[in-house]
Amino acid sequence: MKLDIDVAVRGNELSGMEKHWDVLVVGAGIIGLSTAYHIKKDNSDLSVLMVDRNAAAAQADTRKTMGGIRDTFSSETNRLLAKSSIEFYQHVQNELHFNLNLQLIGYLWLLTEREFKTFEPLETEMRKQGVRLRTYDRKDLASLIPELVLDPKTKQSNLIGIENIYKALQGLDCGIVSPELIAKFYEEEFKKQGGELQFNTEVKSLCLEAKNKLDLPGEPHIWQEKVFSGVKTSRRFIKADTIIVATGARTSTLLDPIGIDCLIKPKKRQVFQIKSPAAEKLINTKGFNESNTIPFTILPKSGVCLRPIRGEKSFWVTAEDDLGRGLGYEEEPMPEESYFTYGIYPILTEYFPYFANIHPANSWAGFYDVNSIDSQPIIDRVHNCILVVGTSGSGIIKADAVGRMAAAIFKGNDEATLYGGRRISTRLLRLTNRSVTKEELVV
Amino acid sequence: MKLDIDVAVRGNELSGMEKHWDVLVVGAGIIGLSTAYHIKKDNSDLSVLMVDRNAAAAQADTRKTMGGIRDTFSSETNRLLAKSSIEFYQHVQNELHFNLNLQLIGYLWLLTEREFKTFEPLETEMRKQGVRLRTYDRKDLASLIPELVLDPKTKQSNLIGIENIYKALQGLDCGIVSPELIAKFYEEEFKKQGGELQFNTEVKSLCLEAKNKLDLPGEPHIWQEKVFSGVKTSRRFIKADTIIVATGARTSTLLDPIGIDCLIKPKKRQVFQIKSPAAEKLINTKGFNESNTIPFTILPKSGVCLRPIRGEKSFWVTAEDDLGRGLGYEEEPMPEESYFTYGIYPILTEYFPYFANIHPANSWAGFYDVNSIDSQPIIDRVHNCILVVGTSGSGIIKADAVGRMAAAIFKGNDEATLYGGRRISTRLLRLTNRSVTKEELVV
Repeated sequence: MKLDIDVAVRGNELSGMEKHWDVLVVGAGIIGLSTAYHIKKDNSDLSVLMVDRNAAAAQADTRKTMGGIRDTFSSETNRLLAKSSIEFYQHVQNELHFNLNLQLIGYLWLLTEREFKTFEPLETEMRKQGVRLRTYDRKDLASLIPELVLDPKTKQSNLIGIENIYKALQGLDCGIVSPELIAKFYEEEFKKQGGELQFNTEVKSLCLEAKNKLDLPGEPHIWQEKVFSGVKTSRRFIKADTIIVATGARTSTLLDPIGIDCLIKPKKRQVFQIKSPAAEKLINTKGFNESNTIPFTILPKSGVCLRPIRGEKSFWVTAEDDLGRGLGYEEEPMPEESYFTYGIYPILTEYFPYFANIHPANSWAGFYDVNSIDSQPIIDRVHNCILVVGTSGSGIIKADAVGRMAAAIFKGNDEATLYGGRRISTRLLRLTNRSVTKEELVV
Repeated sequence: MKLDIDVAVRGNELSGMEKHWDVLVVGAGIIGLSTAYHIKKDNSDLSVLMVDRNAAAAQADTRKTMGGIRDTFSSETNRLLAKSSIEFYQHVQNELHFNLNLQLIGYLWLLTEREFKTFEPLETEMRKQGVRLRTYDRKDLASLIPELVLDPKTKQSNLIGIENIYKALQGLDCGIVSPELIAKFYEEEFKKQGGELQFNTEVKSLCLEAKNKLDLPGEPHIWQEKVFSGVKTSRRFIKADTIIVATGARTSTLLDPIGIDCLIKPKKRQVFQIKSPAAEKLINTKGFNESNTIPFTILPKSGVCLRPIRGEKSFWVTAEDDLGRGLGYEEEPMPEESYFTYGIYPILTEYFPYFANIHPANSWAGFYDVNSIDSQPIIDRVHNCILVVGTSGSGIIKADAVGRMAAAIFKGNDEATLYGGRRISTRLLRLTNRSVTKEELVV
């Protein structure tokens, strides 16, 4: 029963027939794109391949988000990631003249008295850290948004637990963007640098091997050093020296089988588009920003929020799930009409009776990657595999900084330089011994 | 599209025909049993029902563990939970005269020079905190365990990456116990106090309802206050005011559908029994403890460890999984012979050539509940549901203290009193904002 070790110890074989990539990026969502772009930019001589199961980039959760961007976070790390990413997007749009539909129309939190008291210490801290905020009292709000009911008083509002609006807080350097345009920017730049993309290529599993193979059955064994040799896709095996996992909500499907707990769980998130001629007036609300539109607005109950779509005279609305909405991945997540009708609608119409009798014109569902520990991304290396996942509903907001951190980890650097020059430790967002506080401002 | 809210708001209906329990404990493993015992002991007038899918208590992972107990942990919280639980088990065996097969034969870490250096700061800290430890140098070891090869020098040992043993460290207040006897103690006491048990009753789901039901389709909605009304089992619905979830590795199956991330993932853990006439000599090793047997022994490679079974002249052995062994639950986890043959055996026989040509006489597999954040239990309340899960391979060791903490949370107390009188905050091990350091001494 001695091991049969008389075979020579072999290195990883490299067949001359197959391309062996320096870097393989799995997932062409916004995080994979940003990471691939920054890796290729920093290392132009490397061969970098990005694969995605869909027919084009950014077809999954990237294009299903609300596309809100903000620098209003309670965690210093989150603020830094968000702020530098937003500044990079501004640079892309204003200096590189690549339109991202980026408009800093603000985030407007409508707060009850109770919520305002919870917010106050966060507000003080954020202002101290340079986050630009503006406060509105009831009088301001009544005059700026005449359509808003500050004190809903119907029988229904009481049942639902609707509370009066006490104040509002606007994050001034927040706004909206088109995630698919940010994705397009990264994709085009990545290709210009010589990066390659393969679509319709679903990664089925990551391949872990013994570093020194011994031709024993069932390798790698517990005592063997391990290395990722590549991935199995729906079509073939792809070899690479480094694998970047940027698969968002699908991540545990790939990592559980090799024993890596990615810390995140997928939760369905639904978006409904509401369109009405009456919406036009609300969309053209003045006084909050130069665009003369209503900011990305968060109502006091269940995180119901509205994002104006100016050209289409419509809003996108979503809500924050409470207990009772399951965790788990589905191939084809579907929006539920009853979620709008019984969940969002009653809250929305108490504050904006304006939307009475409205029906969603469109709806879709994607996944929020819940990291229930601290609601911050996971960026770490496990041998020659780098994880860039779990952006917890703010992947668009932080994608540029997150990609730079992953690229720094790829290079073995202890720090990453974010857009604007700020440096950040690449050890903050590891799988274990994370050095971040729990984010309290989750939308 | 207004909600139909003209029906009177109703409380939870209570049919006179069905028993409505004060407390329902799901899972009669050691954690459920300890929790049920402590809740019933503190609140004798409450009706407490414990259900389990198996035909008797402690039939799943509780009886598949190695049954080692130790107070040697790097985390202060873990040390406190372990120490007070071990003292309680001693009290049960020595003063209540309920045999638990508890023997403080020690834990013996055989360490390479590299490992010893990592261990040293932990050792210093543990000694400072009152953990009783004894160090052995190579001369001691050679004389105490002549069967042990301190410097394996075979061709195989080099390939496997076996290193020389430099020193050993013994935790003196550690040892072995029969988990099923601790379980039996709690079960009998729980029944004496009037607690009830139902077996062959598998909980399929937890039932979450709106606190104030409105007879709307799809309740509870996002804006409704929620309450757990009971559980659906393979046989019927069981109503209860409080539900205790103590389902170990199965927990995410129950909690994911209601949107609670329990933070733990199951990982298969295998135990092999090795039996040989030659083992007798090793079992009768003198000098480590009053029982004149070899301690629970951990080898330097891959966490391979041996637990002596004196009466049967055999050992149980297991190993620590590395990358490549998947996460996930299976109904019938099976041990793999190749895991022993190619994983454990080569390491074991390098240090104990003594075991050459041995075959496992028996083997089984259970689940380790991986909490990759800090390797400590999760004890928290979500509305009227209390989670007591994720004991990360040390559920037996800490079961008494964990049960007391859950019982304190049930009573709404901010602190629990552990056996021996030490008090501990019930907020340390919550689902979020946990206040514990990562445990570094995982076996």
